[in-house]
Amino acid sequence: MTEKPKHSNRENDVLAVLPELFRTDDPSVIVGAGPDDCAHVRTADGGRLAFSTDAFAEGSHFLRDDPPGAVARKSLLASVSDLAASACRPRWALVSLCLRKGLPPEWAREFAEGLAEAAKEYGVTIVGGDLISSGSSVFVSVTVAGEPFVDEPLLRSGGRPGDVIVVTGELGGSIRGKHLSPRPRVREMEELMRYAGRTGTRPGAAMDISDGLSLDLSRLCRESGAGAVVEEHLIPVSDAAKLSAAESGKTPVEHALADGEDFELLLTMPPKLWDGFAAHLVGADVPEGLACFTRIGVLTAAEALLLERPDGGVHPLGAEGYEHQW
Amino acid sequence: MTEKPKHSNRENDVLAVLPELFRTDDPSVIVGAGPDDCAHVRTADGGRLAFSTDAFAEGSHFLRDDPPGAVARKSLLASVSDLAASACRPRWALVSLCLRKGLPPEWAREFAEGLAEAAKEYGVTIVGGDLISSGSSVFVSVTVAGEPFVDEPLLRSGGRPGDVIVVTGELGGSIRGKHLSPRPRVREMEELMRYAGRTGTRPGAAMDISDGLSLDLSRLCRESGAGAVVEEHLIPVSDAAKLSAAESGKTPVEHALADGEDFELLLTMPPKLWDGFAAHLVGADVPEGLACFTRIGVLTAAEALLLERPDGGVHPLGAEGYEHQW
Repeated sequence: MTEKPKHSNRENDVLAVLPELFRTDDPSVIVGAGPDDCAHVRTADGGRLAFSTDAFAEGSHFLRDDPPGAVARKSLLASVSDLAASACRPRWALVSLCLRKGLPPEWAREFAEGLAEAAKEYGVTIVGGDLISSGSSVFVSVTVAGEPFVDEPLLRSGGRPGDVIVVTGELGGSIRGKHLSPRPRVREMEELMRYAGRTGTRPGAAMDISDGLSLDLSRLCRESGAGAVVEEHLIPVSDAAKLSAAESGKTPVEHALADGEDFELLLTMPPKLWDGFAAHLVGADVPEGLACFTRIGVLTAAEALLLERPDGGVHPLGAEGYEHQW
Repeated sequence: MTEKPKHSNRENDVLAVLPELFRTDDPSVIVGAGPDDCAHVRTADGGRLAFSTDAFAEGSHFLRDDPPGAVARKSLLASVSDLAASACRPRWALVSLCLRKGLPPEWAREFAEGLAEAAKEYGVTIVGGDLISSGSSVFVSVTVAGEPFVDEPLLRSGGRPGDVIVVTGELGGSIRGKHLSPRPRVREMEELMRYAGRTGTRPGAAMDISDGLSLDLSRLCRESGAGAVVEEHLIPVSDAAKLSAAESGKTPVEHALADGEDFELLLTMPPKLWDGFAAHLVGADVPEGLACFTRIGVLTAAEALLLERPDGGVHPLGAEGYEHQW
């Protein structure tokens, strides 16, 4: 999924100018357009809300023959994952669906059924949307609104040198299936924030891994003004990454580092919080399945991304992952 | 913009099953997926919020050569218009943009500039979005969140026989330019709701006219369980509709009835409220430009849509307008 830059029509080049263009002195906006995937606002009543939007195009994020219900599931859960990473409970969603000419009548119906099912699983209510058609390809955009379960938003910029780097789940090879059926870490994040709140501590930076661990970690580091050392042998490599490696000639850990659409959490936190939380996770009162956090490295003051091999050798970690071009 | 039904892949056929599929017992949802364009929810803090989403495809809602800034403006303001019709102040927006291969680098930049400009005019802050690419055509989806300025949402279903039917602005011929540069009636709606609040009255039904007056009125009537008599000579026909008529062979009023994308308000209200509000609008304290409301007819108990011609003849009013097919 890695593309080399060929010309200037690159996602990041456009994204770079947007914070300036959408800069605001609107006091209701706590986190607006910028590096973070989730916006936070304050309502006139003093309430807090968070929003995230993700868009998906046939041929790029899903294929013509992917089941419509799975396309819907992925489209909804990508934004749910953004809200989870921002320590928010997803609540309401709006869905735009652009159908192409010639789709069988049941396509939209199966899409809607998959959407309803995934929404129910995550406590989200579909409150609106828009259905249109075009000649060429299917396009989906989902906006999820939610409510933060902590006072201060977690941001990519919150990491500090010395913070432990932590991920959830297993990484890589999502193209083999998980990319259509992500498992946003809402309950896991809630468990972490509950523990952190109880102990008067708090994570540093947070985001979800959607474009590949190394690219997303490089973004987190840039916003936090930090570097990172990742210990290769600590990276939780998925079975799918191993299968992909058997075919691609790359190593499983290369897939875990560079493949996109893991929809797992990427967090940093003070070592003390990590030690306490890791001990807490093996306790009897933690619901089964939540103990999927893995420490993979540490943030450093030097602004370099490094990979420490099992033999102790340290190498630059390239920020590889998925970037849109057009 | 009128299409004849050719097969079963029609927007309304799909939309018809969604309320059932997305039915919810979520107590936070005041107005969810259903006939109305704007969702209303209650936050955990007890605050109220409204959302609307609209999607746009190149070749359908805008053309390849339309200025990117105008495409952005239209995309944002369509949802702003939905919020206005639902008596809400638009506050925050998220924008998905899918670019096609080969677009010049400045396209996205000009889109973003047009978006920022239109947002500023309507007091909206762009708080997030997603930028992707696909091979074939440009898609846009915008979600606008806002805050209601009355306690109870105005719905399509709120009309009662005897209510006066009122529209804003002038209708028809929007394809000649207004469809890319709508003027959502936020201030007009606020003025009406302020007047209604002061006099202890309230409008009946409300929606915006996006698919053509006759089609949208038929929807309002269906939800309200009412019919309507529209007096042809009262319909405010735009100059653009007259220009279109000179070319199409249809009459200007036919364009005003059936053309889409007016983005004007369609309201019903008790005659007493209308009489008072109409008198209020000509008062000295009403800001210039707000007095654009026109009475065009009346809701009836008989569930038929009728057009009363200047000669006194009464004819069935076909529900013509724009419907997506694929």
